[in-house]
Amino acid sequence: MNAQDCLTMLREMKDVAFATVDEKGNPQVRIIDVMLVEKEKLYFCTGRGKEFYNQLRRKPEVAITGLNKEFQMVRLSGKAKKLPEQKCWIDRIFEENPVMNGVYPGESRYILEPFCIDSGNLEFFDLGKSPIYRENFVFGKEKGAAAGEEGENGKETAKESESGNDEKKGFWITEACIGCGKCMRVCPQQCITKGTPYLIRQENCLHCGLCFESCPAQAIVRRGE
Amino acid sequence: MNAQDCLTMLREMKDVAFATVDEKGNPQVRIIDVMLVEKEKLYFCTGRGKEFYNQLRRKPEVAITGLNKEFQMVRLSGKAKKLPEQKCWIDRIFEENPVMNGVYPGESRYILEPFCIDSGNLEFFDLGKSPIYRENFVFGKEKGAAAGEEGENGKETAKESESGNDEKKGFWITEACIGCGKCMRVCPQQCITKGTPYLIRQENCLHCGLCFESCPAQAIVRRGE
Repeated sequence: MNAQDCLTMLREMKDVAFATVDEKGNPQVRIIDVMLVEKEKLYFCTGRGKEFYNQLRRKPEVAITGLNKEFQMVRLSGKAKKLPEQKCWIDRIFEENPVMNGVYPGESRYILEPFCIDSGNLEFFDLGKSPIYRENFVFGKEKGAAAGEEGENGKETAKESESGNDEKKGFWITEACIGCGKCMRVCPQQCITKGTPYLIRQENCLHCGLCFESCPAQAIVRRGE
Repeated sequence: MNAQDCLTMLREMKDVAFATVDEKGNPQVRIIDVMLVEKEKLYFCTGRGKEFYNQLRRKPEVAITGLNKEFQMVRLSGKAKKLPEQKCWIDRIFEENPVMNGVYPGESRYILEPFCIDSGNLEFFDLGKSPIYRENFVFGKEKGAAAGEEGENGKETAKESESGNDEKKGFWITEACIGCGKCMRVCPQQCITKGTPYLIRQENCLHCGLCFESCPAQAIVRRGE
């Protein structure tokens, strides 16, 4: 599993949710087709008359998510860049997605503008497995900045992220652990391993917070908020 | 079709995208289960340790979308309210959604908090039809405020919205129309009818903006931005 695999999954889901922030600072979300994925880049398009287009022009930050039939979720966050050479990209998109001709026949396709997300953060979350499985990736030019030298292949498991990346989320057990085992007993996914200190297997963690609330020594900390 | 039908569709899709705005003002989105829908209210839950929970507590505005196999999309925007009587609601949710016991067995379910959306705006968008079909609804207490006296049943077609509701989006042809017919010829969904002035059938409009850009008399205006 790597960043390209996650992007390919989004392309296979095809109809995924794209969230933006509107001019009032509120969330907006709609289903948009992932039109192309190649070389760790994701392409989509939208009409110049749409609110989605105006929201992207005002604030390019976008969050994407989709779920497949195996209950595997992919989440992406990044910035959407409008592409130059509009006609060239729109023609390419229509070639790869012929169903678009039914919605925008003939020359009407050129009301669409192509966008690309070439860097950002990805999360893979497998709800079809027990325990659940999660993994984070960075892709594109964010890779160097976010993952540092360990970012090869854009792969970076949740566990590796202990080395201190701002983008990393979840809970960690500190040296203040008294070894009582309460966290291990309450964890709904049984993803805590005995040790000194006890250890949360980050790749199986729901981030539900039950260990954090249950620890009698306040030895569990939250990261990334 | 009415607001309750849209909410029921979201419940049937079950796994839908919930978008929020994070502490940096950026969009975040993830797949969440719609746990219950009744009496024009939508219920879901999330763990107190999750970023989603913290985002909702900071800023309750949420946008939801899902797509079914018939390519019918529903979009909702509203505010998520945390419910009192947590255990009572969580028990009810687990009763209606027994699969949750596999993820949060035993007492661990009470790390979850129940939320309700009891008012807001809904959009139904049918991409499985040609031309596409769209309709807007308000539900809950927003109904009175947003739709005024015409808001009975929470039903309010895009066409009715010409009476001037801030929440209404799209394009309208004004009296400045010179009757040249260019908008009608370029429309990808052929949703413009000849007349004085020409008329956009709002329920079939993609909001792509091609008529707006093509009108030689600048007779077409955008609403709701």
